[in-house]
Amino acid sequence: MAATTTYLTGIQTSGEPHIGNYIGAIKPALTAANSHDTLYFLADYHSLNSTKDPEKLRHDIRSVAAAWLACGLDPTRTLLYRQSAIPEVFELTVILTSVTAKGLMNRAHAYKAARDRNEAAGAADLDSGVNMGLFNYPILMAADILIMETDYVPVGRDQQQHIEYAADIAGAFNHLYGEHYRFPIPQGVYPEGEASVLPGTDGRKMSKSYDNHIPMFLPENRLKKVVRRIPTDSTPVEDPKDPDTSAVFQLLSQFASEERAAETRKRLEAGGMGWGELKNELFEVLNTTFGPMRERYEELLAPGSDLDDILADGAERARQRSRATLAKVRAAVGID
Amino acid sequence: MAATTTYLTGIQTSGEPHIGNYIGAIKPALTAANSHDTLYFLADYHSLNSTKDPEKLRHDIRSVAAAWLACGLDPTRTLLYRQSAIPEVFELTVILTSVTAKGLMNRAHAYKAARDRNEAAGAADLDSGVNMGLFNYPILMAADILIMETDYVPVGRDQQQHIEYAADIAGAFNHLYGEHYRFPIPQGVYPEGEASVLPGTDGRKMSKSYDNHIPMFLPENRLKKVVRRIPTDSTPVEDPKDPDTSAVFQLLSQFASEERAAETRKRLEAGGMGWGELKNELFEVLNTTFGPMRERYEELLAPGSDLDDILADGAERARQRSRATLAKVRAAVGID
Repeated sequence: MAATTTYLTGIQTSGEPHIGNYIGAIKPALTAANSHDTLYFLADYHSLNSTKDPEKLRHDIRSVAAAWLACGLDPTRTLLYRQSAIPEVFELTVILTSVTAKGLMNRAHAYKAARDRNEAAGAADLDSGVNMGLFNYPILMAADILIMETDYVPVGRDQQQHIEYAADIAGAFNHLYGEHYRFPIPQGVYPEGEASVLPGTDGRKMSKSYDNHIPMFLPENRLKKVVRRIPTDSTPVEDPKDPDTSAVFQLLSQFASEERAAETRKRLEAGGMGWGELKNELFEVLNTTFGPMRERYEELLAPGSDLDDILADGAERARQRSRATLAKVRAAVGID
Repeated sequence: MAATTTYLTGIQTSGEPHIGNYIGAIKPALTAANSHDTLYFLADYHSLNSTKDPEKLRHDIRSVAAAWLACGLDPTRTLLYRQSAIPEVFELTVILTSVTAKGLMNRAHAYKAARDRNEAAGAADLDSGVNMGLFNYPILMAADILIMETDYVPVGRDQQQHIEYAADIAGAFNHLYGEHYRFPIPQGVYPEGEASVLPGTDGRKMSKSYDNHIPMFLPENRLKKVVRRIPTDSTPVEDPKDPDTSAVFQLLSQFASEERAAETRKRLEAGGMGWGELKNELFEVLNTTFGPMRERYEELLAPGSDLDDILADGAERARQRSRATLAKVRAAVGID
């Protein structure tokens, strides 16, 4: 695998995935894996910056890993590992700090956003509440990428700066030590066109921070209840309805087959199909999509499942790569 | 050893030690080791922030290790290891960033000194030339200290802030995760009274940056030449001389026995002793002090010596401690 082109996908471990994550991140990443050699890692140490609850973090990590596997990530064809299982990432992070200008970090979007929030709140110290994990985040992410000698990183446009920083940091290292070792310069691979924005149960963009998300693995009865709560207008059953302003229909069209979505669109526009029937249809489609995954997810989450073995095996294979890279880097800087 | 009080001494790996380092750092540290359980580590990754020359760094690390061993550090009674041999230090560094406020780093002396230099030079960006290794230095140092569950750190007063930061960071961690694990809070142990300032070959304080230092392990003929170059005034041989304004006498009094120094003082004050004779005496005392060490130093520096085995053995024993600490820390934060 080392000689081929490497794609690396980082996975946040901040709580159970919802169906918006599935459409926006999981499904495209798994589709890409069919045509590339792709590594996936659970960015569990990144989560420490926001989660100080060890029980929750422990659960979230297993939950996210189980979700991706349940969605079809094939750990024999790709590599799935926890960031925290790769000590070479952290040692490389320390090495990279010595070639990273502080000015670069000062201009990082996430850090600047935190300062802007402080400014808006009238804080005397714009760094108030900012921890060094947030400030160093781009360097840790660069190490995640560079330790695997990654060529391409499929990510959202919001991550573009981080990929550019990783490339900058790799370039700074190569400039100083290129005679002895050169990192491949990583490139971002961004979705074409607009990202599809999935509406949540209140009609706004689906997001955990709005608490309007539909978790992927709800039991049937709870899934039904959540779907019923999605707001609709009071158009009578017999009247024509506009599918394009209906959150329920937008959700349906993401998960139903094209034929089925077209059929339902026609029936809504013709009149005679009520919101209740549409919601039943959405429930049915979601349940058909996620039902089998839910079973696998629950199997994997159960104590004594394959999950820990899968992650241990992924870590062992990933470390073959990370150890090799770190040995070359150490020799290049003179620490061997 | 784990149950007893732990002293930790960090050793800079920035070039061959000189006789000022011996009096100011090596001798006091080795004296302390007689009464305490002390760990010594070579802070080789710290050196990456200033040294980008791999050959030089490689040499400096071995040279400094050989020097401390030649000066009497007993690797069977204490522990000597390279920072770079302890991966747990770097993983702990990443964990500590998540509990370290950026404001703390903004106020670090070394970082502020770099900004002051930029301001004095009229730089538009006060962070110009500052790398993230310098900015993060206090966190890496905290990890060096905390990974060994250190109680006491014998250091110079110039390092007091770093020790206080390590204590602050340990306190922040304990506040969040103390239910599961608590770091001992490290304390600095500072020299009493004024540090003895050794004059260099130009009469100013001995320092590599003034290029007026006397390397510890000069061959005899070069040592003789260096001593002869120390400036003296033109007082004739027969006239009385003031020992307290003589750099040669000040050096002598640090290395000769008290009796011998007192005797020489009398002879200078009485007149009849010339600077040439005083210099011969200094050469003889330095050569007697460092001659046997020089032999051991050169033995250790030679390829195929014991040095690498000593460091490997120290690393293995140090990792028994660092692995145990990291396992407790990981479990406490929820990454296990």
